[in-house]
Amino acid sequence: MRGVILHAPGDVRVEQRENPKVEQPTDAIIRLAATCVCGSDLWPYRGLEPVDGPAPMGHEYVGVVEEVGGDVQTIRAGQFVIGSFFASDNTCEICQAGYQSSCVHRVPMGSIGTQAELARIPLADGTLVATSQIPSDDLVPSLLAASDVLGTGWFGAVAADVQPGKTVAVIGDGAVGLLAVLAARQLGAERIIAMSRHEPRQKLALEFGATDIVTDRGDEGVAAVRELTNGLGAHSVIEAVGTQESMLQAIRSARPGGHVGYVGVAHGVELPGEELFFSHVHLHGGPAPVRRFLPDLIGLIWNRAIDPGRVFDLTLPLDQADEGYRAMDERRAIKALLRP
Amino acid sequence: MRGVILHAPGDVRVEQRENPKVEQPTDAIIRLAATCVCGSDLWPYRGLEPVDGPAPMGHEYVGVVEEVGGDVQTIRAGQFVIGSFFASDNTCEICQAGYQSSCVHRVPMGSIGTQAELARIPLADGTLVATSQIPSDDLVPSLLAASDVLGTGWFGAVAADVQPGKTVAVIGDGAVGLLAVLAARQLGAERIIAMSRHEPRQKLALEFGATDIVTDRGDEGVAAVRELTNGLGAHSVIEAVGTQESMLQAIRSARPGGHVGYVGVAHGVELPGEELFFSHVHLHGGPAPVRRFLPDLIGLIWNRAIDPGRVFDLTLPLDQADEGYRAMDERRAIKALLRP
Repeated sequence: MRGVILHAPGDVRVEQRENPKVEQPTDAIIRLAATCVCGSDLWPYRGLEPVDGPAPMGHEYVGVVEEVGGDVQTIRAGQFVIGSFFASDNTCEICQAGYQSSCVHRVPMGSIGTQAELARIPLADGTLVATSQIPSDDLVPSLLAASDVLGTGWFGAVAADVQPGKTVAVIGDGAVGLLAVLAARQLGAERIIAMSRHEPRQKLALEFGATDIVTDRGDEGVAAVRELTNGLGAHSVIEAVGTQESMLQAIRSARPGGHVGYVGVAHGVELPGEELFFSHVHLHGGPAPVRRFLPDLIGLIWNRAIDPGRVFDLTLPLDQADEGYRAMDERRAIKALLRP
Repeated sequence: MRGVILHAPGDVRVEQRENPKVEQPTDAIIRLAATCVCGSDLWPYRGLEPVDGPAPMGHEYVGVVEEVGGDVQTIRAGQFVIGSFFASDNTCEICQAGYQSSCVHRVPMGSIGTQAELARIPLADGTLVATSQIPSDDLVPSLLAASDVLGTGWFGAVAADVQPGKTVAVIGDGAVGLLAVLAARQLGAERIIAMSRHEPRQKLALEFGATDIVTDRGDEGVAAVRELTNGLGAHSVIEAVGTQESMLQAIRSARPGGHVGYVGVAHGVELPGEELFFSHVHLHGGPAPVRRFLPDLIGLIWNRAIDPGRVFDLTLPLDQADEGYRAMDERRAIKALLRP
């Protein structure tokens, strides 16, 4: 099969890889209907994370089950399935508490690489959610979004305790930030402040439910949010970048007693304990336990209540994955969908 | 009147101070029935916080109202009152959300200094809670504990989301840590692991409801908590120290999806963002909004359901405040009560 391999920063190639096969009796093999490039794939692509030799890429996926191992009970060949970027048993104490991305048996799908024609999915019963039928083609991008960016934005909103009537600020206008806006709207937020200086992204934020756009960053961004909230700060702030500046901006944009939900993978962040102490914020986040939300999110997509697939503003055949990476790196595209 | 003044690290004196008077129409003047030395008073006493010239000390207080300003509505002369270490209006949006220690009009009582015969209490209606009658003398220590250490330990437990049936670890065996044990018990925790290597404090922790004592610290302390929790970590961890080591120990002792409630005033703490991200913990804390809990805590004390005053293992006349500081600094006493 063909699959995407990162050889070095900036060097992404589509190459022949060995077909995956069932290795554990709990595995499934799926044929991908669609996959995509994630903002987090850009960290190694940009050389901001080490690249140790050729690495398979991709951790987002939807597709049709080709084969299952002997212990798989609920998933069967022919089903259309969606899973999260961590495989999880969905039965351990941590999964049962809703933290499947910290499952005691978790497997990071990025180590398997789903930017490919086929993929092995460990712990298939716990990881995959099947739709009732094969979806119509126009639903595929939204179902693919549920695999990571929608689920991650949604977790950011839940971690930030978004509730009806509250004011929410969203830091980051990538796909996750934009879908955090959508999540905040779905969760009933009254006011949603999207921080963005890119016109196409501002437009999508407004369509997803943002009520205010703030173009300032850092201290000016904090001041702008405070001005919109009687000087108090937002009830909920969703952080979807992962840098020192964005984390501090998030903490400083929240009111005392407010909540910061952070889902941007932290890079080089050191939080000053004293400031955090006196900020009185709640801080929660990490790798989104997307599996917790998948059944509900699939339902919303199936019923066409939400259309998160709109974050894909570039669709390419898998063979042109390198252009997908480049377009996202240069911010020409919000998110690139790849058709194997 | 006499009052405690810190002149320099280690140099605490009881001196003649000017009698406080009503400065704002929302003020009350109280005559202290009892006051005490706080663990946080030891930071400047030990020279770990700057001492800029002679500073009045103390922020914990119970006493009888002598006089009120013209705008005070609910508090009147002759009442026995308890207040928190931050004066607060209890009406602003932040107070109404339960974060009175970040009230938009807050006044830190430490800047006034309640280790004295009399004290001015700003925003009396918002700050003070009156008991129905003058309490019997044996209740005074427990009511005084409610002013800070009980309320702070309680907030730590609430911030750590302590719930019935859960496993809680408490880091720090000072008065706040010990009363966090008491709070966790009251909030229904099934298992309470107290981290302490001091026998008298271990004994009090057990009497307050601890089920396990762990004497290890740092990585060994983390390993001990994990061993007691099937390798997963505690559901809730209460941090009542405020150092880098104790904060990391707290984060590492909590399971993914667990909660860390931190109430030790942070000193020199820098939290590694990446570790925090992948820890999946909830983090919340800061200066305890004691006012939120005061009515309930006073009720529990009044009905003798709890006896938090037992943390005072040294009682001295105000004039011997220096011995109170010394005894706590040398860990000869858990907490020193001062009788003006």
